[in-house]
Amino acid sequence: MPVNLDPPTHLLPVSGVTLFSAASGMRYADRDDLLLIELVPGSVTSAVFTKNKYTAAPVDIARSHIKESMPRALLINAGNANAANGQTGLDNALQSCEWIAEKLACSVKEVLPFSTGVIGEQLGMPAFQAGIASLEPCDWFEAAAAIITTDTVVKAVSKEVLIDGQTVTITGITKGSGMINPDMATMLAFVTTDARITNTCLDAMLERGVKQSFNRITVDSDTSTNDALVISATQTVEMETIEDPSLPNAVAFYSALEELLLELAHAIIRDGEGATKFVGVSVSEGASEQDCELVASAVANSPLVKTALFASDPNWGRLVMAIGKAPVDSLNIDLLDLSINGVTLLESGQPADSYTEAKGKAEFEKDEIEIQIKLNTGSASAIVWTSDLSHEYVSINADYRS
Amino acid sequence: MPVNLDPPTHLLPVSGVTLFSAASGMRYADRDDLLLIELVPGSVTSAVFTKNKYTAAPVDIARSHIKESMPRALLINAGNANAANGQTGLDNALQSCEWIAEKLACSVKEVLPFSTGVIGEQLGMPAFQAGIASLEPCDWFEAAAAIITTDTVVKAVSKEVLIDGQTVTITGITKGSGMINPDMATMLAFVTTDARITNTCLDAMLERGVKQSFNRITVDSDTSTNDALVISATQTVEMETIEDPSLPNAVAFYSALEELLLELAHAIIRDGEGATKFVGVSVSEGASEQDCELVASAVANSPLVKTALFASDPNWGRLVMAIGKAPVDSLNIDLLDLSINGVTLLESGQPADSYTEAKGKAEFEKDEIEIQIKLNTGSASAIVWTSDLSHEYVSINADYRS
Repeated sequence: MPVNLDPPTHLLPVSGVTLFSAASGMRYADRDDLLLIELVPGSVTSAVFTKNKYTAAPVDIARSHIKESMPRALLINAGNANAANGQTGLDNALQSCEWIAEKLACSVKEVLPFSTGVIGEQLGMPAFQAGIASLEPCDWFEAAAAIITTDTVVKAVSKEVLIDGQTVTITGITKGSGMINPDMATMLAFVTTDARITNTCLDAMLERGVKQSFNRITVDSDTSTNDALVISATQTVEMETIEDPSLPNAVAFYSALEELLLELAHAIIRDGEGATKFVGVSVSEGASEQDCELVASAVANSPLVKTALFASDPNWGRLVMAIGKAPVDSLNIDLLDLSINGVTLLESGQPADSYTEAKGKAEFEKDEIEIQIKLNTGSASAIVWTSDLSHEYVSINADYRS
Repeated sequence: MPVNLDPPTHLLPVSGVTLFSAASGMRYADRDDLLLIELVPGSVTSAVFTKNKYTAAPVDIARSHIKESMPRALLINAGNANAANGQTGLDNALQSCEWIAEKLACSVKEVLPFSTGVIGEQLGMPAFQAGIASLEPCDWFEAAAAIITTDTVVKAVSKEVLIDGQTVTITGITKGSGMINPDMATMLAFVTTDARITNTCLDAMLERGVKQSFNRITVDSDTSTNDALVISATQTVEMETIEDPSLPNAVAFYSALEELLLELAHAIIRDGEGATKFVGVSVSEGASEQDCELVASAVANSPLVKTALFASDPNWGRLVMAIGKAPVDSLNIDLLDLSINGVTLLESGQPADSYTEAKGKAEFEKDEIEIQIKLNTGSASAIVWTSDLSHEYVSINADYRS
């Protein structure tokens, strides 16, 4: 059951973006599993890919293509990750780009392929080709539904922002709920906007935005072979081009973009495998942002913290254990303050006189929990979001494959 | 259920070591929970403590005492970790040392305290004092039983090694099964020998030995506030003093010591929380030992690998994912060979032609699994041992506390 996450109800078209979907039948019966995002000529695109060294074939092709030219099309298939498939996998990913290039009369280098699903099985190419031939125009709701695998809720967000009197639209979709069940592996996100923005500026905003959103979430500390986040700007709004990140038009655009990225990233945690809680680990007053992030990640990835969260158990001994194991030299336990949803557990590293087990229990029983850690060694901060570790997580990842 | 782990049947006394145990009733009814290890004057002791920055009071006291003088006594209580207890915790730990110092007519600095159990509750000092007053001589079996908390099997090993015609005895006990249920937190190990060895040489052997054993095991990647490993040598055997680690007498002694440490460390994994498998992740042909250890740890700590192991699911996609996420620059996926118990899964990063799902399944169903990874970038190697992630792990850590 996702934690306080409803399907999107209001998604805005983005001028310059045309969507197509189809059901190839490669893995799933009776649902769309192919999505084509066509971008008007002149669009600029920025992308980040998994840091995992074991990259899937489409990641290798997409990385190579985007270096050579700006994409005209993004092709996504769900159900097969085309990972660990050797030269055949690379050939197949490239072949799928060629089919799209023919269809759109563009260069094969202008097509980026993305895959999510089973690792180690070759794509069914006849079905893939037939699926591409049967692509039909669709809307964002259908687009978001076509890329999911074991997600239980479709994930998409739209934002509008007024810049220089013009309405700029941003619409993004994402999929993922951990490293996903059972061979499914991938977080994918596709964000489009009609904003006029330079590629350099978009690259910088993507780098900054992903750091504050998708790189700050963790379900199980595992990263996949196929992760990708792509932002395309079609340049179709009549506006001054955004090029200096410090100017007001850039600040306004970035603010809306980061908000959208954060909502998409949060949706993945809320739909995390077996999640029963949505948990923010907020670390503040640290010596550096990196120190804060290391402490937040140590807590967010601790199996013992996550099982305590699942149990609604205000087991603060596990929290101090997890904080203490973070590889942060500046950490001084005697300075540490710890609260849960505003209820103080520790002050200067010691149990607070005002704390009672009943107060802690009341907060830990909520399905939205913020663990608030003050390091009191500086002025930096960071938040990492995570879910709990439940029986359902083990069931999803252990019980169902064969 | 522990994985192929029986209680010890043969434990050897160590001359110069006298053991005492008692039931203080501080937490448990009807069992010993106090252990005193008395060391003959002239004994040398080496110790390593948790790297967690949130250290328990006894760790602070023990670290301080061992810097000032060689210990005459090790005092261990089970059931209360005396962690996060502020100045009162420190005062109480010191008080317990004073009681032992009076009893043995030694200096308080010559007593090292160790605690394991609940975090954040003060010790019951009247019961502690009464327990110390009632200490009675015991053997190693009783000693090993007195220090456990939620361990399901008592853990102890003895070794004999012939050095220069003299029999040297090493006997060690340990406790721990992860960060342990539910507030219990600690891996403790106490090893004693009658060998004649310099403190400098013992320090070096401890550092090397712990690196190859206790630092190479992981149940859940969490380290506790109270972890400690202590080795005491009573110098009571008539032999040439071991002082140069490169000489044959040192090599023979170290070899037996490392074997003992490894058996104790493996016992913790075999009795790991919810463990149904005993798993070695062996990484070889790497550019450096550190690279090998990072890859092995990435695999051993991956929740998705551990749930696949629990499911007996030969899900090698998760193995390559976990290998790929290791922070190792020298990693080259195209060079990687992967086998399970000798059955080849991948050659040069690609699925082996000889592999079948049935072959993989047959190995994954065993309760002793070795994941064999060849990096083929050098000649270094490392092994990390772990258990699987089962429903029982979640139950132990989520269901039982309150």
